[in-house]
Amino acid sequence: MLSPSVSLVKIKKIKSDSSFYADDLLVSEEPLEIRLGYGPAYDREKKNISVTMRTPGNDFELALGFLFTEGIIQNYKDVTHIRYCTDSNRIENKENIVRAELDESIFPDLKKLERNFYTASSCGICGKASIDSVKIICKTKAFEETLFVSEKYLFTLTEKLNQQQNIFRHTGGLHASALFDDSGKLVLMREDIGRHNALDKLIGASLVSGMMPLEEYVLLLSGRASFELIQKAAIAGISIVATVGAPSNLAVSLAKEFNMTLIGFLRNETFNIYSGEERIITDVPADIADKRK
Amino acid sequence: MLSPSVSLVKIKKIKSDSSFYADDLLVSEEPLEIRLGYGPAYDREKKNISVTMRTPGNDFELALGFLFTEGIIQNYKDVTHIRYCTDSNRIENKENIVRAELDESIFPDLKKLERNFYTASSCGICGKASIDSVKIICKTKAFEETLFVSEKYLFTLTEKLNQQQNIFRHTGGLHASALFDDSGKLVLMREDIGRHNALDKLIGASLVSGMMPLEEYVLLLSGRASFELIQKAAIAGISIVATVGAPSNLAVSLAKEFNMTLIGFLRNETFNIYSGEERIITDVPADIADKRK
Repeated sequence: MLSPSVSLVKIKKIKSDSSFYADDLLVSEEPLEIRLGYGPAYDREKKNISVTMRTPGNDFELALGFLFTEGIIQNYKDVTHIRYCTDSNRIENKENIVRAELDESIFPDLKKLERNFYTASSCGICGKASIDSVKIICKTKAFEETLFVSEKYLFTLTEKLNQQQNIFRHTGGLHASALFDDSGKLVLMREDIGRHNALDKLIGASLVSGMMPLEEYVLLLSGRASFELIQKAAIAGISIVATVGAPSNLAVSLAKEFNMTLIGFLRNETFNIYSGEERIITDVPADIADKRK
Repeated sequence: MLSPSVSLVKIKKIKSDSSFYADDLLVSEEPLEIRLGYGPAYDREKKNISVTMRTPGNDFELALGFLFTEGIIQNYKDVTHIRYCTDSNRIENKENIVRAELDESIFPDLKKLERNFYTASSCGICGKASIDSVKIICKTKAFEETLFVSEKYLFTLTEKLNQQQNIFRHTGGLHASALFDDSGKLVLMREDIGRHNALDKLIGASLVSGMMPLEEYVLLLSGRASFELIQKAAIAGISIVATVGAPSNLAVSLAKEFNMTLIGFLRNETFNIYSGEERIITDVPADIADKRK
């Protein structure tokens, strides 16, 4: 049986010298609505807080990661229940609505969800205000330099990710987020059609398994590094982020602000360091290292 | 002077046998808030309707394309003014807020903005409801077969896009959307760090220049085809969409529902047809065409 994350379709393949019909696997995409229940037992409130187009699978992790990176919850124990909403007359969509019940002691600031940077700064809406908003949610102002990795360590990461992505690789449609420990072992990976969702699922899974904060791990992103991805990484306590693609200027500014190491264009045996080079140990042979000087 | 779309940073480049400091160009990313003014002159209402992280540039087009593809406006003339909100005490961010004034005759259904599929279907939230919501906004139920292109025509598109993307190519951080006419000429292209924004800018520019609906043009997307991109294309009247990356299952379902031609994995001289193969003319030499049978 196919996983709900992929679908089989019939396509026509065209090449310059041939064409034929073939079966093809596509990545699945369905909307997910996240609902929140909160407040005292005698007067529970409920609210729909988000709809995202996501690849089905690991939906509770996605919801938990989203709540965490938006600053609504601080710990897994802030959520007392999480379940699919199976309204009786809604058969088709029973796994497209997730409801998370917050502990009675948690009163979420739902204004945050409208857009974090509204509440962050009197200067209005700009990159600086966006960065200030992350500072409000983060428990740290700047990451200490406790985790160090070598160049060789980084050179091996994308190949390890590719090996794990085997199942979905031929759909060509998935973003991946992965955590590696300091020995270079891939310890957790999540995939989704949306890059934010892949990272929310990874962070949600880390919450559930008690790995948070993620200061001992290196995060690898399969795509580009936008502000919002680096924001999520910072809130999860990750001090080294490597991406296969390019970062934006605001992603780099945020990484610098938090003293986070940000690596881009990690491909084969090359990469660029955009921020925090102190955490990268040079381990090339002495003769080559000499030439570098 | 640098364009506001790119920023210059100092980075460290690491290769297996060398490392050095270098200047690097990054794609810029800043939040853009879209505000709406509407209602009769004696009682104007205003509302903040969206914040998106975008690459600065073509902001009015972005706002117009967003309003159009969300079903808030039908024509460029529905908007009487569009301008930056330059609040006196907000110096830093004066180009991060765009305000569009709707004609007095337009009363926008702002519920649509919360999420189109909420209003579309009694079945709740699922892929089918998402497709139904597009039908409500679209003026057509299914595209007629009036535009046809050849395999050779399609083989040339990505190279033409790459040539146009020269300015930003080395940032590695931009998505592109482009329109080609039936002779294969690239007539319009827009880029952005967000793929939705690139397409909204393209559609907004088409609105301004009186090209809508876009039924005579082929759309090329630099990345993957998600549901939301195909939704925007359908609302703009585009019957042939080609993407360099993979489509999702829901993107394919939507394309089929509207009888849209959807091409994926367009690279060099190969592509896949996911929907609407009738619009693709085979133009390979007869001897090869014979072998195909």
